[in-house]
Amino acid sequence: MERITARYYIETPYAVEKAAEVLAGEQSSGTFVTVPGETEELKSRFAARVEQIEVLETVSEPAIPGASSPDGRYRRALVDVSWSIENFGQNLPALVSTLQGNLYEIRQFTGLKLMDIHFPEHYAEHYHGPHFGIGGCRALTGAPAGRPLIGTIIKPSVGLAPEQTAGMVQTLAEAGIDFVKDDELMASTANSPFETRVEAVMAVINRHADRTGKKVMYAFNISDEMDAMHRKYDYVVQSGGTCAMISINSVGLSATRRICDLGQLAIHGHRNGWGMLNRHPLLGIEFPAYQKLWRLAGVDQLHVNGIDNKFWESDDSVVRSIASCLDPAPLGKPLLPVVSSGQWGGQAFETYRRTQTTDLLYMAGGGIMAHPGGAAAGVTALQQAWEAAVSGLTPEEAAHQYPEFGQSVEKFGKLPFKRI
Amino acid sequence: MERITARYYIETPYAVEKAAEVLAGEQSSGTFVTVPGETEELKSRFAARVEQIEVLETVSEPAIPGASSPDGRYRRALVDVSWSIENFGQNLPALVSTLQGNLYEIRQFTGLKLMDIHFPEHYAEHYHGPHFGIGGCRALTGAPAGRPLIGTIIKPSVGLAPEQTAGMVQTLAEAGIDFVKDDELMASTANSPFETRVEAVMAVINRHADRTGKKVMYAFNISDEMDAMHRKYDYVVQSGGTCAMISINSVGLSATRRICDLGQLAIHGHRNGWGMLNRHPLLGIEFPAYQKLWRLAGVDQLHVNGIDNKFWESDDSVVRSIASCLDPAPLGKPLLPVVSSGQWGGQAFETYRRTQTTDLLYMAGGGIMAHPGGAAAGVTALQQAWEAAVSGLTPEEAAHQYPEFGQSVEKFGKLPFKRI
Repeated sequence: MERITARYYIETPYAVEKAAEVLAGEQSSGTFVTVPGETEELKSRFAARVEQIEVLETVSEPAIPGASSPDGRYRRALVDVSWSIENFGQNLPALVSTLQGNLYEIRQFTGLKLMDIHFPEHYAEHYHGPHFGIGGCRALTGAPAGRPLIGTIIKPSVGLAPEQTAGMVQTLAEAGIDFVKDDELMASTANSPFETRVEAVMAVINRHADRTGKKVMYAFNISDEMDAMHRKYDYVVQSGGTCAMISINSVGLSATRRICDLGQLAIHGHRNGWGMLNRHPLLGIEFPAYQKLWRLAGVDQLHVNGIDNKFWESDDSVVRSIASCLDPAPLGKPLLPVVSSGQWGGQAFETYRRTQTTDLLYMAGGGIMAHPGGAAAGVTALQQAWEAAVSGLTPEEAAHQYPEFGQSVEKFGKLPFKRI
Repeated sequence: MERITARYYIETPYAVEKAAEVLAGEQSSGTFVTVPGETEELKSRFAARVEQIEVLETVSEPAIPGASSPDGRYRRALVDVSWSIENFGQNLPALVSTLQGNLYEIRQFTGLKLMDIHFPEHYAEHYHGPHFGIGGCRALTGAPAGRPLIGTIIKPSVGLAPEQTAGMVQTLAEAGIDFVKDDELMASTANSPFETRVEAVMAVINRHADRTGKKVMYAFNISDEMDAMHRKYDYVVQSGGTCAMISINSVGLSATRRICDLGQLAIHGHRNGWGMLNRHPLLGIEFPAYQKLWRLAGVDQLHVNGIDNKFWESDDSVVRSIASCLDPAPLGKPLLPVVSSGQWGGQAFETYRRTQTTDLLYMAGGGIMAHPGGAAAGVTALQQAWEAAVSGLTPEEAAHQYPEFGQSVEKFGKLPFKRI
């Protein structure tokens, strides 16, 4: 029977082999005394199996509270553990409870992080995955291959009335933007009810599309209770929208998958709450594992932060996240990485240098809206920066050659280009 | 307009007041440059507000990676921040994205934990909350006030066939157990399809109820994709079951609420994955905040670990979690705390001494199933332990007075009584 393998980064006060056996035991037979009915045949069929252990460094202070070490040493290792797919079948929440679940409670670990998951091909095939993905989002927006989709977030996050939001979308659409999104804090506020906002924004987008043939993708934040999400989704579809945004951690796996399965809108997966799951180096989950779960659930676009972002995450981590979204496995369907946080054209050069891809949704908020020449010039400056980065210009050459990008350098930039 | 207030435990390399303003800013206006349309009136209506700061200790090492401190000091504080309910309305996922969301990403914090949430009365009233709660679960199981509901988990977690599970339930029912549950690892395995298991188990439970008038509550693990959960829920209802279990972190908030809203079954909320959200002292969420979100979503029972448990959690934390489940606010509807992990009758004394309550679902796995006199004697021993604890006997007196409890002391106990 095929098996799913998970890789963990662990720290333990005990022998690594013993701790790995505790992990496998807790997440399959799961009790501390042998009970009637627990035969050897059952154990071998359903038991989790330690496949491989790579011993790493030893430290003298535990990463998180747990059992004290008898010898004052805490041992780190990478551990691969596998489960038969007979244990959970095609059930993502049951898979998550198996691969994560009570593991984080075990006192024999003073650190535990789920690093990656390997799915056998036939298992993943049972999931539809992203309905649109990179190619579909390009087709919906008319953004040709060879450049990122350029996007922005409506700011302030909350407070604008629908007609103000629609006014901004008008400006941005005329500037040639590909993508606009609600902030994750904006669901349905007292002065911007969801339906009114959709109506106002889609009137602008549809009119612009009729005139120019280009339909701006607007990710309406439908994150809500289940029935309300369905209603909001349908409202976006009926209004001619092409995308809905879900705060995936807040909404959860089962409801997100239910919405993705509808298949009529590209799903913008916002990972707010991610820091809670990832910020500690030895607790939680790493992005390569995380994005696979949400890819199976069916999101099309997923946030990865950005180079020199305003948050705590390192550039190396961002680069690795982009690579894991673009890796076709599982499903042969990559995700569109959403780059954001303190971005402007200045980071296009380093982003391209390190990732060598333009299959990105490249988002700037203030970087577009606060451009000295206005939002339209902000969009142009971003397009110019990417054109320059891909064609091999230095930022200095680009600032000289492109006036709008040059203006943004004057406002936001100093060498080397940093976040605003 | 009424406001929701959240309390955070923070650590920052900067002045505490400045960091608190960053928190409030990021989670309302949310950008780093002033943009057109962001008027003072909008700001005051929708901005988050720092209500109170209690400065705590200063340390020289950051709790989690973030910005370095200019003076090598990291300042800790409790910070209360409030939001107008106009910002999100009756939308739990939007509330979570506001109170948690990107906060954990902010580099100005080297530690951030959501400690508690205060809901204004009128806000909470829009949620039904637990349909059964403590009184409803007592009524469904026929467990009178004055003693805990006694429960167990079918072990091994995965591997048993439906008829084996049903056989165990038969033994347990005859022993007078109130509650039995699937393990969270057991959803629908190759040798125990969900429907077949429900059929086998409910045949036993219904027959026992017809004969004795007592219906054992069995929490079938319905955790799954949305439509599958609906089907499984209906199947349990049709089969005469009274309870369904959901792995709430794996399934997520929106789908869990959708199922709770159906209102025909008591919902057993399993918090596996909780350690990931809570184990670090300065990252994630504390139980008082967590249980309120799931209470609004509608779960009836929620795991709290147990005194001297086999996991990492301290007794103090367990005692506080029990108290927060029993606190009637919000909604005036307490949750039934589910005590488990390495429990047997030995911990009843300390549990009662510290909590002075019997409004518990007290669960033992091996503590019942591995009793030297068999599972029936295991149930009896637990009932005896609680009777003795409530009536003020010492564990030694109880072991002398009650033969089955005495046997379990011989197998599991040493003084002071510890987990198995």
